[in-house]
Amino acid sequence: MPPYVAPVRDVRFVLEEMLEHGSLALPAFEEASPDLVEAVLEEAARLAGEVWALLNASGDHQGCRLEEGRVTLPAGFVDAYQAYAEGGWNGIGVSESMGGQGLPEVVASAVQEMLHGANMALALCPMLTAGAIEALAHHGSEEQQAVYLPKLVEGTWTGTMNLTEPQAGSDLSKVRTRAVPQEDGSYRLFGQKIYITWGEHDAAENIIHLVLARKPDAPEGNKGISLFLVPKFLVHEDGSLGERNDVTCASLEHKLGIHGSPTCTLSFGEGEGAIGYLVGEEGRGLNHMFTMMNEARHKVGIQGIGVAERACQQAFAFALDRTQGRSPRSGRNDCTISDHLDVRRMLLSMRARTDALRALALYCAAQLDIARHGDSEDFRKTAQARVDVLIPVIKAFSTDQAVEIASLGIQVHGGMGFIEEAGAAQLLRDARIAPIYEGTNGIQALDLAGRKLQRDGGAALESLIEEVETTAAALKESVELAELGESLADGAVDLRAAMARVLEAGADPERGADAVQAYATPFLSLAGHVLCAWQMGRAALAASAAQASGSDEPFYQAKRQSADFAIRQWLPVGRAQRAVIEAGMESLAGFDAAVP
Amino acid sequence: MPPYVAPVRDVRFVLEEMLEHGSLALPAFEEASPDLVEAVLEEAARLAGEVWALLNASGDHQGCRLEEGRVTLPAGFVDAYQAYAEGGWNGIGVSESMGGQGLPEVVASAVQEMLHGANMALALCPMLTAGAIEALAHHGSEEQQAVYLPKLVEGTWTGTMNLTEPQAGSDLSKVRTRAVPQEDGSYRLFGQKIYITWGEHDAAENIIHLVLARKPDAPEGNKGISLFLVPKFLVHEDGSLGERNDVTCASLEHKLGIHGSPTCTLSFGEGEGAIGYLVGEEGRGLNHMFTMMNEARHKVGIQGIGVAERACQQAFAFALDRTQGRSPRSGRNDCTISDHLDVRRMLLSMRARTDALRALALYCAAQLDIARHGDSEDFRKTAQARVDVLIPVIKAFSTDQAVEIASLGIQVHGGMGFIEEAGAAQLLRDARIAPIYEGTNGIQALDLAGRKLQRDGGAALESLIEEVETTAAALKESVELAELGESLADGAVDLRAAMARVLEAGADPERGADAVQAYATPFLSLAGHVLCAWQMGRAALAASAAQASGSDEPFYQAKRQSADFAIRQWLPVGRAQRAVIEAGMESLAGFDAAVP
Repeated sequence: MPPYVAPVRDVRFVLEEMLEHGSLALPAFEEASPDLVEAVLEEAARLAGEVWALLNASGDHQGCRLEEGRVTLPAGFVDAYQAYAEGGWNGIGVSESMGGQGLPEVVASAVQEMLHGANMALALCPMLTAGAIEALAHHGSEEQQAVYLPKLVEGTWTGTMNLTEPQAGSDLSKVRTRAVPQEDGSYRLFGQKIYITWGEHDAAENIIHLVLARKPDAPEGNKGISLFLVPKFLVHEDGSLGERNDVTCASLEHKLGIHGSPTCTLSFGEGEGAIGYLVGEEGRGLNHMFTMMNEARHKVGIQGIGVAERACQQAFAFALDRTQGRSPRSGRNDCTISDHLDVRRMLLSMRARTDALRALALYCAAQLDIARHGDSEDFRKTAQARVDVLIPVIKAFSTDQAVEIASLGIQVHGGMGFIEEAGAAQLLRDARIAPIYEGTNGIQALDLAGRKLQRDGGAALESLIEEVETTAAALKESVELAELGESLADGAVDLRAAMARVLEAGADPERGADAVQAYATPFLSLAGHVLCAWQMGRAALAASAAQASGSDEPFYQAKRQSADFAIRQWLPVGRAQRAVIEAGMESLAGFDAAVP
Repeated sequence: MPPYVAPVRDVRFVLEEMLEHGSLALPAFEEASPDLVEAVLEEAARLAGEVWALLNASGDHQGCRLEEGRVTLPAGFVDAYQAYAEGGWNGIGVSESMGGQGLPEVVASAVQEMLHGANMALALCPMLTAGAIEALAHHGSEEQQAVYLPKLVEGTWTGTMNLTEPQAGSDLSKVRTRAVPQEDGSYRLFGQKIYITWGEHDAAENIIHLVLARKPDAPEGNKGISLFLVPKFLVHEDGSLGERNDVTCASLEHKLGIHGSPTCTLSFGEGEGAIGYLVGEEGRGLNHMFTMMNEARHKVGIQGIGVAERACQQAFAFALDRTQGRSPRSGRNDCTISDHLDVRRMLLSMRARTDALRALALYCAAQLDIARHGDSEDFRKTAQARVDVLIPVIKAFSTDQAVEIASLGIQVHGGMGFIEEAGAAQLLRDARIAPIYEGTNGIQALDLAGRKLQRDGGAALESLIEEVETTAAALKESVELAELGESLADGAVDLRAAMARVLEAGADPERGADAVQAYATPFLSLAGHVLCAWQMGRAALAASAAQASGSDEPFYQAKRQSADFAIRQWLPVGRAQRAVIEAGMESLAGFDAAVP
């Protein structure tokens, strides 16, 4: 299996040449000098490539074991996690006021991608902790923040999100876990949560579960749900650990992939009840949970990109090594398969899409930075509006594409791709969860086409479409890139037309909800293709500028081919989604799935 | 896990209403009366649903074990195979002169789909045997046919195809296995073959390996390769079994899927050499192998459809059972997820594609029947030319789609889809091999865009495009179906234009070979979409005719929605491949995969 080499060169291209340091230049990030950022990326690449990546296959093979309530992780995982925590990586994106290093989200996102590319199963652990930090930072009491945040930020303790129950998946209003108030102001929780990522393990001293539950007298539906903090070990006032709480791992799931990540069924209150503490306002649990869901969704998109990058690297290494067949160009009878244009189509398609997704995700991360630290209210608002529209696209589109890219990676390997030892198959198995969790990709599409689009009449997306057009116009000014500009402009036209259609149909008082459901997925796919093509248009401009100023680094030429492929051979497939939407919803509305 | 119910209703619709009994009416199939065919389908459905399907999950879970050269199959597989052989199923499509039942290929194909849908890993065994039968029937000596065919047709013995070696995959000219002539006219084989499906097992009394190898003095390249028959147990003149031959299973592969199918590395001649017999002409091994490859490719396409059908059934059952969320129509707070149009999009997309692929594969089977048994030479030739063009499409397009359909099936299940116990994940794991073996889908695309298209200047495909246009015209005559007719006609225009482009580019003496490589995959995808949409146009006409003559069976209404979806929401995505081809090959030709 080829080594994983974190994509530092491409990340630097995006940060320095596409985003032109963008959010890095904000006063809040004064300390994030280009040198520091470069050092962070290089160090992260080392941890990812030289430590975490080496445990990816063995972690998959060994999986996790549950014995008498204790989960044993794959060999090496505890040390690898601790190397990460001790290296201070857990807090790089957390603000300094909470004990983190306050690096910009663009940098933190790039590091996350490296860790997911190296070992997705292991990288899930800090991803969930980050969610817990976010929730407590926004909604925890001062006392809760004082007790829990430092340890979570250090990574000495880890966090989990406890949402799903057997009857409550996408529809969390069905949550039944009970939280019974105690005299001392705490609660006792009773219930069962499923699919809890890193719900039990021994890599950290304590685990802080954030749990959706209802008070006994709470109303039905969303408004009865509150958020509770339930530590695995109770914490004394001085911060030392006390008794084991009444929360246990009842079973581990036997999953398609991410075998190194323990996915637990957690039982709360098999004895006297798990002691928990209300976080934020009573009845606002879902709302509080969504605070962290939004960023978690960005991170899941990033995760897809990490796996896609690794799939690329494996496929390229295989195709450059495997000799088979005759090259039409050299006539050699033992050319590498990368010489066959049909194989090269697969490789370039993988590379172009991965590059595009990375650029879009980092653009969104930069907007997140601006939304938090921008100079003016206006500036921050505009950025936040873009983030809101981009996040469902990044979550769903990156993860759908990651599955396809990992599947193509298998195909490049031929017969070897189906053999587990080659490692290509694991990437597909691992990637396949990402379109499902943190809100299925269907839910993301509804979020985009429904809530996000309808609430501002499409204004935020329209502002992005205008950016796409600006890029298209810039491309058209160059003789060499004009064709890309034409294609990109066509994509913008399609996206705007589809948006108008979705807005119009969604506004129908009778059938609007159905229409949003019917058009959501093709609309998100169209938006993803156009926005990714936009990023590759910007990449082509940046690469072309570098070449014009004298660089002959082959990276730039490869980037231009990648951009050409993305805009002229990938975008057209996405543009077809406009026709899908314009075909209307009647076949869906009339279809009776119960007909045998 | 829901039961597997073989799609008898839909098969009958295709045979009776779409193909109008077509090839079944040929004099050669006089005995295949509608009643007999119906009985065969019902019985096959019983074997598939009540025996084979029940072992699919356990077979996956248990896998195969190798101990001291012996392979142990999953529990129940030996009995299930024997029930199949004793039921006479192995010979249903084999001509009566060879001891089979001589049923038409359309019927045999429908039965194959059921078996693959029930248990793909197990169904591979007879699939490989069928290849061996085909090779011997065409190229074996009379004596070889007399000794081996009856047992293979009965299924008492099974067959394998031994092509791949570590250095010889898609490029079989690299085969190194040696066949040393002996004084008695036999050969001794020495070498190693990999990825041998059902290469060793104990479900049958003997295994007949068909092996590509070279005589010591053979020329390099394709022309030095001959085909040899190597039995696991030598066969005495009276047909009784003799000594164990010098062929052993060195290892079993650890694969992503089809765990119930033993994929073997076979060592020939670790001792004095494996005794083998030349089949057909010396130096024509590849050619003889391709005799059986062609039909095997059709069968792999069918296999994809079988798995896709099962994925549909599981997804529909789950979506009709799982309650979650609020229905915009009924307002009910506990609707099944099949009520959400976004989920329904996934379901209908799975169903429409599976139906379309089945109809196309059975159309091709009917053409195969005509090619063999048609009334006139002309009739047979035309059918064979269509078969030649259709087979790579059916192999590649059905299997690519099957992977997507199985992946969508996981998505419909939400979190449960990722849990192995639900069974949806196995279907993706199993399906993923089909685009790889029997010639990768890239090889299929080259076969179509290169050999098949270039040799007749596209005449055979043109004749199919004309059929598409005939169907489009018929649809346009109906007010209700006119929109489908328009869309289908647009698809025909795209396919013709793309064909012209591929023919023109392929004819370039310098860059033709590269151009075919560059355009092959998008071209095959376009052809697959248009031909599938054509079949669904025919399905819409047939369903509409049944409704017009008074039937209110819900099946017909569902079929019309399925056709509407296929033509108006699926075809546009395929049509985008024309633009992909028209974008040219420069980004591929210029791309250097070695740039880090």
